[in-house]
Amino acid sequence: MKLFNKVVIIGTGLIGGSLGLALKKRHLAGQVIGLSRHKKNARLAKRIGAIDSVGSSIDAVKDADLVILATPIEAIISLAPKIAKKLKKGALVIDVGSTKERIVSKLSAIIPNFLGCHPLAGSEKKGIANLENDIFKGTACVLTPTGKTNPAVLNKIKLLWSRLGARITILPAKKHDQILSLTSHLPHAVAFSLISAVPEQFFTLSANSLRDSTRISSSDADLWSEIFLSNRNNLLTALSIFQLKLSGLKSALKNNDQKKLIKILKLAGNKRKKLG
Amino acid sequence: MKLFNKVVIIGTGLIGGSLGLALKKRHLAGQVIGLSRHKKNARLAKRIGAIDSVGSSIDAVKDADLVILATPIEAIISLAPKIAKKLKKGALVIDVGSTKERIVSKLSAIIPNFLGCHPLAGSEKKGIANLENDIFKGTACVLTPTGKTNPAVLNKIKLLWSRLGARITILPAKKHDQILSLTSHLPHAVAFSLISAVPEQFFTLSANSLRDSTRISSSDADLWSEIFLSNRNNLLTALSIFQLKLSGLKSALKNNDQKKLIKILKLAGNKRKKLG
Repeated sequence: MKLFNKVVIIGTGLIGGSLGLALKKRHLAGQVIGLSRHKKNARLAKRIGAIDSVGSSIDAVKDADLVILATPIEAIISLAPKIAKKLKKGALVIDVGSTKERIVSKLSAIIPNFLGCHPLAGSEKKGIANLENDIFKGTACVLTPTGKTNPAVLNKIKLLWSRLGARITILPAKKHDQILSLTSHLPHAVAFSLISAVPEQFFTLSANSLRDSTRISSSDADLWSEIFLSNRNNLLTALSIFQLKLSGLKSALKNNDQKKLIKILKLAGNKRKKLG
Repeated sequence: MKLFNKVVIIGTGLIGGSLGLALKKRHLAGQVIGLSRHKKNARLAKRIGAIDSVGSSIDAVKDADLVILATPIEAIISLAPKIAKKLKKGALVIDVGSTKERIVSKLSAIIPNFLGCHPLAGSEKKGIANLENDIFKGTACVLTPTGKTNPAVLNKIKLLWSRLGARITILPAKKHDQILSLTSHLPHAVAFSLISAVPEQFFTLSANSLRDSTRISSSDADLWSEIFLSNRNNLLTALSIFQLKLSGLKSALKNNDQKKLIKILKLAGNKRKKLG
């Protein structure tokens, strides 16, 4: 069942492209138009069938019923005023950025029917070449309405994500950013630091443990510097919490305290098992 | 081609059991006898076909041509004197422990034909239930001879591991432990600390990043406390190196220094890509 007539996706990378593909596959949109800073990416998205056509300029949003902002964070923020001026009355706008407070405060001030979204479907692989079908199925998706969000807008976007198979959570942007600083941004910061600490010449003697625990450190540097900086205070706090845990383990080790060490590792292991 | 007539494996867990299976599959042993602290595990190993029979006591090593010590580190060390007394002349003994300096110094002093080995094939999954075929194929295996190691013993064990498909590296035990403190023990210490830092109630909003980067924190606590403590000084140094890297990232973030942050993340990402 069609939810929107014309959908414009700005940013046809992994998330934007996958969204296009999912919308088309489930017949949720009349037509899907894709825009990308890199024309080549948008053309590739079309060839793959993730979009119906490549928009030639930002003017494509003019008669859109839904605009999806799927670029990195700072591009979302700088695009917003340009889009706001061109939208038709009643047009819905969502973004899929990884941090929400900065985006939501900027965008909800200038776009009446804006709703912040964050499908937790990112990957260290970026770009449309890694586009997958149905990456939203079973994935958590956080919606971050404000006090001023029109309930009809919220309902329509809830319907959209649920049609894509996502598990929807509704949270204030501030709370979203606090939680994600621990469940996503901290692991990334740790992985970047971990691989930095291991000399390359020792890689031949590494096992799956190093490989798995640093996989996400090959994530895009520009994208992640923006995520980190846009959630700076929360991430600084998360890093401090992590540093305390690390110091606790280190001091048990320094003191040759096996009992304490086992206790720390057991608690950690039991917790990890609950993550599944 | 048979390399050994009678092989006794003490410790029929994931590594010991997989070794038995690989030896038998490739017809490298006349018979394989398995011993375990937990009789149930050894019986399961027999049922799976990883060993030919379950040894009833340590006396099983009496006429063994090869004894493989595949228990946790401290058990290897406490078993050694008991085994040393019973071995026939010319019997070879290897261990597959994750740290080598402590084991090699203790065992090479009392067992003439001992050689320390470390196949980097561990997993957070322990026990014979997770036993896999051919986990040694393509896996790095470090052999740690001392100045006194008989070259014939080294050659025979090299042949054994190469028949199992492992990529052999020969290193002094001390160097092995220094390298592994960075490529294996540090990632584990970091993963245990990382999962400890993330509140369980936020797990529903976690993505693959947290899952992957903490997977190894469900590793066995007793086993890993022994690994950490037996490589204490190296791991303390590795932790300090990691803490410095983390502080570098944290201060770039604190200073809102995007240029520096991008540089750190890019270097890390490029390095990670070389790990494959």
